[in-house]
Amino acid sequence: MAPEKGKRKMIIPDKINLAHLPTPLEEITFRSKNFLIKRDDYTGSDFLGNKIRKLEYLLYEARKLKSDIIFTCGGDQSNHARATASAAAKIGFNTRLFLWGNEKRNVEGNLFLNKMYNAEISYLNKSEFDNVDEIMTEERRKLIKKGKRVYVIPAGGSSTLGIWGYISFMNELKKQIDLKNINGIFSACGSGGTAAGLLVGAALNKAKVKILAVNVLLPKEIIRKKILQLAEGVILDFKLACSIDESKLEIIDGYSTEGYKNISEDKIKLITEFAGSTGILLDPAYTGKAFCAFNDLVLKKEKGKRIVFLHTGGIYGAFPKLKSYLKHV
Amino acid sequence: MAPEKGKRKMIIPDKINLAHLPTPLEEITFRSKNFLIKRDDYTGSDFLGNKIRKLEYLLYEARKLKSDIIFTCGGDQSNHARATASAAAKIGFNTRLFLWGNEKRNVEGNLFLNKMYNAEISYLNKSEFDNVDEIMTEERRKLIKKGKRVYVIPAGGSSTLGIWGYISFMNELKKQIDLKNINGIFSACGSGGTAAGLLVGAALNKAKVKILAVNVLLPKEIIRKKILQLAEGVILDFKLACSIDESKLEIIDGYSTEGYKNISEDKIKLITEFAGSTGILLDPAYTGKAFCAFNDLVLKKEKGKRIVFLHTGGIYGAFPKLKSYLKHV
Repeated sequence: MAPEKGKRKMIIPDKINLAHLPTPLEEITFRSKNFLIKRDDYTGSDFLGNKIRKLEYLLYEARKLKSDIIFTCGGDQSNHARATASAAAKIGFNTRLFLWGNEKRNVEGNLFLNKMYNAEISYLNKSEFDNVDEIMTEERRKLIKKGKRVYVIPAGGSSTLGIWGYISFMNELKKQIDLKNINGIFSACGSGGTAAGLLVGAALNKAKVKILAVNVLLPKEIIRKKILQLAEGVILDFKLACSIDESKLEIIDGYSTEGYKNISEDKIKLITEFAGSTGILLDPAYTGKAFCAFNDLVLKKEKGKRIVFLHTGGIYGAFPKLKSYLKHV
Repeated sequence: MAPEKGKRKMIIPDKINLAHLPTPLEEITFRSKNFLIKRDDYTGSDFLGNKIRKLEYLLYEARKLKSDIIFTCGGDQSNHARATASAAAKIGFNTRLFLWGNEKRNVEGNLFLNKMYNAEISYLNKSEFDNVDEIMTEERRKLIKKGKRVYVIPAGGSSTLGIWGYISFMNELKKQIDLKNINGIFSACGSGGTAAGLLVGAALNKAKVKILAVNVLLPKEIIRKKILQLAEGVILDFKLACSIDESKLEIIDGYSTEGYKNISEDKIKLITEFAGSTGILLDPAYTGKAFCAFNDLVLKKEKGKRIVFLHTGGIYGAFPKLKSYLKHV
């Protein structure tokens, strides 16, 4: 990714090194089909998964701004929230999480880990969570009055700074495989940051790689718009020498009709079969749903080898669903 | 580690690459003390922890012998058993685990994962488990009669082949730090294989590094003898050009008096404080106990910088104890 030769000089943000990179690109076999899987579940242990790539940029900025406390938000089993709580503790920040859920539910999986990393947790109901950005802004204002410096990370770390995690991912990937040899990258999509970063990373590298994003949280048109806005935003904010070809983004819809926090029995059945034959346990909110789509749309159609499946982590999210999972063993 | 020039030529076994190596060597801070931590909890996700280093050698041999099924054993929350089940599934072996515990207990943590990786599980009570090697041999005999090839891995992967995982670890470590700058490596010690490998790796590299092993499972004298036998065994089996200086092995006793499967409240309290200030959650059977010893004997005595703490993984083992952990948040 050479800087542009023209007048507008591209800005490349700094980051803290936190993730265990580069993650492996592996070939694995499922139902006698081979495919490539990028192991972003190998980025760490406490903060394993894709989110730490974004946090490397965001927490660098937070540290530069001499922040005392990090705010972020997500579902009560949010992998992003858990990765933030762990990484923030490591660097020395306090963390406050605004989570969609309530304290009466069992404290399990990612939520258990958040508590161990000493994150302060504010529970919101669904309608409050729809206004979580305003709630975080208001709470930030209160702390500023008390002389605190608060750094706010939006849901999923999906800001124009955060998505640099997946812009730079593309530089890592091209050292592992000639991008000409892949047609697409297939991934779960919550807040859209990973897809937006990949889209921009591909454009900067002039790679004809389609980004196939399985929307697990937001409706198709809303997430599509959000991803494109993030991608356009980062190009403007950082003066990037590329433009987005919208046809390179495909939202794979219909794999989370049971709702973000739920997972259908047929999907758990496939997750269980996959774990038993590969030793890889997928989570119920993100990778499990994305893999079901990948299996239907890629593996069953013999296109596997040219489309990389991105494992975005999330194994701790399987623990609160273990009873449902075990029914299929 | 140059081959010996004399007549006996050292044998270096082959392995399958499974672990995400090299793992980082990081400096972290706890209670204002800095120390080095080797992140062997970053070796993967499903099979994260130290055991996969041993399994790289063992499963290579199992594959070479065209084995159908892997046998191994451990406690019902054994990290080694879980790592074996995951890695074996990935390669395409069936797995049978002989676990000390019973089915009536909740299926949680590592045991849940074992079931997801489709391992067959045989539960043994404590007295049966004391004879687990004989039981595995007998069950192997039955399967051989049926035409199956069974590969048996002893508890913890601690055989003269398995400990190569930690002999070669020393070559990885010396690329990260001059071994002259460290006095010791501090680690939890269950079946002794990690300590034995480190001891031999240090001897081969002529490094004056003490191996400080916190015995969490076996009595001091028994584990000491076992480690030294493994170390002597690998020197003979592989014609290694070194000898063991027994004074380089120190067993740190008294940090698991509550029993292997239990953990005292004061230790959980320290684990919780550590997680909150570093973002690293230690497990109740191994790393939690080892860190309590490290804190007492190293950090409190200002020797931290010259003794590396080896994080051997095990986070999934924290989940079955989450209620006890949460009491201290």
